[in-house]
Amino acid sequence: MDPRAFIRAKRDGASHSPAEIQAFVEGCLRREIPDYQLSAWLMAAFLMGLDAGETAALTKILAGSGRLYDWDDLGRPSADKHSTGGVGDKVSLVLAPLVAACGVLVPMVSGRGLGHTGGTLDKLESIPGFRTQLTPEAMRAQLDALGVVMVGQGPDLAPADGMLYAMRDVTSTVESEPFIVSSIVSKKVAEGAKAVVYDVKCGGGAFMKTRESASSLGRRLLDATRAQGRASAALLSDMSQPLGVAVGNALEVREAVEVLHGRGPADVRALTLELGALMLLESGAESSREAAWNRLERALASGAAWQKFVAMVEAQGGQGRALERADGLPRAPVIVSIPASRDGWVTAIDAFALGELGVMIGAGRRSKDQAVDSRVGFEVHARVGARVVRGESLIDVHLAAKRADVLAQTASCFTLGEEPVAAPPLILERLG
Amino acid sequence: MDPRAFIRAKRDGASHSPAEIQAFVEGCLRREIPDYQLSAWLMAAFLMGLDAGETAALTKILAGSGRLYDWDDLGRPSADKHSTGGVGDKVSLVLAPLVAACGVLVPMVSGRGLGHTGGTLDKLESIPGFRTQLTPEAMRAQLDALGVVMVGQGPDLAPADGMLYAMRDVTSTVESEPFIVSSIVSKKVAEGAKAVVYDVKCGGGAFMKTRESASSLGRRLLDATRAQGRASAALLSDMSQPLGVAVGNALEVREAVEVLHGRGPADVRALTLELGALMLLESGAESSREAAWNRLERALASGAAWQKFVAMVEAQGGQGRALERADGLPRAPVIVSIPASRDGWVTAIDAFALGELGVMIGAGRRSKDQAVDSRVGFEVHARVGARVVRGESLIDVHLAAKRADVLAQTASCFTLGEEPVAAPPLILERLG
Repeated sequence: MDPRAFIRAKRDGASHSPAEIQAFVEGCLRREIPDYQLSAWLMAAFLMGLDAGETAALTKILAGSGRLYDWDDLGRPSADKHSTGGVGDKVSLVLAPLVAACGVLVPMVSGRGLGHTGGTLDKLESIPGFRTQLTPEAMRAQLDALGVVMVGQGPDLAPADGMLYAMRDVTSTVESEPFIVSSIVSKKVAEGAKAVVYDVKCGGGAFMKTRESASSLGRRLLDATRAQGRASAALLSDMSQPLGVAVGNALEVREAVEVLHGRGPADVRALTLELGALMLLESGAESSREAAWNRLERALASGAAWQKFVAMVEAQGGQGRALERADGLPRAPVIVSIPASRDGWVTAIDAFALGELGVMIGAGRRSKDQAVDSRVGFEVHARVGARVVRGESLIDVHLAAKRADVLAQTASCFTLGEEPVAAPPLILERLG
Repeated sequence: MDPRAFIRAKRDGASHSPAEIQAFVEGCLRREIPDYQLSAWLMAAFLMGLDAGETAALTKILAGSGRLYDWDDLGRPSADKHSTGGVGDKVSLVLAPLVAACGVLVPMVSGRGLGHTGGTLDKLESIPGFRTQLTPEAMRAQLDALGVVMVGQGPDLAPADGMLYAMRDVTSTVESEPFIVSSIVSKKVAEGAKAVVYDVKCGGGAFMKTRESASSLGRRLLDATRAQGRASAALLSDMSQPLGVAVGNALEVREAVEVLHGRGPADVRALTLELGALMLLESGAESSREAAWNRLERALASGAAWQKFVAMVEAQGGQGRALERADGLPRAPVIVSIPASRDGWVTAIDAFALGELGVMIGAGRRSKDQAVDSRVGFEVHARVGARVVRGESLIDVHLAAKRADVLAQTASCFTLGEEPVAAPPLILERLG
C-alpha cells in the first residue's frame, strides 16, 4: 500500500479497486497510515467523487470493520428504517414497535441529533431510565423475546465508520454523497437487518434541500444497500415544514405515544404506515401493499403496537405504562404560546430556522459532546395551508426559562399570507 | 480562525483573504491547527486552485515566517536566478560568480536534487571541503567582500515553506502551480535579492513538459515576484535534451569551470549569458541588453568571473585553484563509452530517462534523505541534430562499478534516424 499513490490516483480522477480501498482504510484503522494522509484522501474523494463500485467497496469495508450481527437463527424476517433527518421526525419511535408487532424483527441502531435535526437516541433517553446501550447478548435476547430493540451504535459496530466520520467532521468533508451513503448503509448492514427502508427527507428542514439532491441520495442508498445483498426501498418525503406537532425530545415521545394509541397527527401516522408497509414488503413478511397496510392498521387498533412499545421500554429500563400519564415524561417549566398577529393563511414555516431555534433553547446540540434538555421544544399548531385568526396560537414554545429573543425569532418562522395555499404533499415519490 | 470554515471555503471554490491565509498558516506553524486540517486544505487548494491574490498572500506569509535578509546597506544592486530544474543544468555555478564579477550582489540560496533533476547544492558539495551552510553573519561578510555567496536554505529561511513542502510531499499535493510558485518566490524574497530572473525549463527533461504549462508557470512566477515588490524577468528554455555535455555533480562542476574559462559547451555559455544579461538589466546595473552582454563577456574573457568563483570556493572552504587540475574533483572509477549502433542523425534524446538513470547510478536521489555519489554521471557527446557514424561515442557513462543494465538503458535514450533533423532552439521565449 502506497498511500501517496492512492491519494494521487483519486486526486487525478481515477477509480480505486476494492482491494486498494480496503488496504487504505485498514492502514488508517491500524494507525499505519497517518491522519494527514487520510484527510488529504477524504478531500480528494469529496471533490472528485467515488463511483458506485467504490462506494460499495467502502460500505463493505466499514461494515466489516467490526461485529457483523446476524439474526438468521431467530427464524423471522428482519427490517429497519433510516431517515436522513428532519425536524419533528419521531417516526422511528412508532414504527419499530409497530413493525415488530407485525412479526418482523427490528434491530434498530440509531444516532443522536446534531445541528437542526433531532436524533432518535435523544428522544428515547427522555424516557426516565431508558438504556440505549445494550450488550450484544442483551440485544439478541430482547430481539428474540420481543422482536424489537432500539439502541445506539456500540463501539463494536462499524468502528471504521466512526473513525472516518470523526475525521470528516474536522476537515469539512461531511456533505459528500458517497461518504454519507457508505456511513449509513454500513451501519444498517452491520446491525443485521435483511431489508432496509429509507425515508429521504427533502426541503428546508432536511439536509437535502432540493428534490434532485434528495432523489440522487435515495438512489445511491438503494444501490449501495442492494450491493450488500439487502432488500431495500426508499421514499422521498416532505420536510418543508416540521413533521407532526411536536418538536423536541420528550414532546416527540409524547406524540409517538399518541400515534401508538391510534391518535396523533395525521401526517405522522400516514408516513409511519407508508414506511411500515415497505418494511413488511421488503422483508417478505407481506406480499401486497394492501395486506401490509391492513396488518399495520390492525396492530395499531388492537393496541399490539403500543403493548410492544411498553414491553420494549420496560426491557430497556424505562417505565412504559407511565408514559400514558402526564408526569411520565419530563416537562418544561415555561410554556409560551405565540399568537397569530393577524388573520390569514399560513403560507410557509421555516423548518430549518425552527430546528436551529431548537438547538438554541437546548433541544438539540451544536457539537457532539453537548448535552440536551429533553423537556424543551415546540408544539406547532398551525401547518402550511391552515387558516388562522388573529390571536390564535400558531405555536407553543416549551422553555427551561423565559427568553424573549426566542419568542420573536419563533414567530418569524411563520409566514402568513392573504391568500390560501395548498398544503404540501407529504410523500413526494417512491424510489426503486 | 475556524479551520473548518477555511477548508470549506476553499472546497467550495471561494477565495481567501490575505488575513485568513495568514491566520491559517500561522496556526499550522504554531501547531494549533493539526496536520490533518492542513492536508485537507492543501488538497482542496490543489484541486480548486489559488488565484493571484491568494498566491501573493501565501508567498508573503511564507517569506515572512523566518528571517528576511536585506542587503540595502551594502549599497549595490542585487539579483538572483532560479531554474525550475532540468538535466545537466549547471548554469548557476557559472552565473553567480559571473554576475558578481559585474558588480551585482548574488545572495544565491539553492536546493538539492530530487528525482530526475539535479540540484546546485549537490554540485557544489562535490568540491572537497565546500560548505553550503553559512551563518547569517558569514553570509553578510562574504557578500560584502566578494559579492557572491552560494548556500543552502538554512532553518531561518522561510521555515513555513519547509513545513508546507513536507506535508505536500506526503499528501500528493506537490505539483500545484500556486504552491510551486509561492515556495520558490518566498525563498527568493527572504534571501533579499531585489531582482529575480527565472529560467523555466520546458520539455521531456523538465517538470513542465509542454510550452503551455511552462509559460503559465513563468507568468505566475513573474506576477508573484513583482507582487512582492521585486523586479523580475523569465525565460522559457529548452529541456528536450540535456543542457551541455556533463550530467552528474562533479562532472557538471568541471564543465562549469570550462565555461568560466571561456570554453565549454555553446548552449551552457549562451544560456548563462542570456540569464546574466537579464540579471544585470533587472537589478538596474545595466540599462541595455548590449551593454549587459558586453560586460558579461568581458568578465569571462578577462578571467574576472573565474577569479570570483575561485575566491568564493575558497571562502566557503574548498580549494578553488585545484579545480583546474584533473584531480581537483572526484572521478568515477569506471567510464564506459556507448557507441552509435549505426550511421545516422540523432533525432531525439530522452532527457527524462537519462535523469532517471542518473538517479539509478547514484548521481541523484529518490527521497530527500538519500546520499548522492558525486563522481558518477554522463558525458553526452552527440546532441539532437548531430550526424553520427557507427562506432562513434554517443555518450560516456561514469560509474562507481560496472553495470551492464545501465549501459543498455542509456543507449536506448538515443533515437537515431535516417534523415537530418534541426537542433531545437535553446531559448524559446522571454516572458514579461
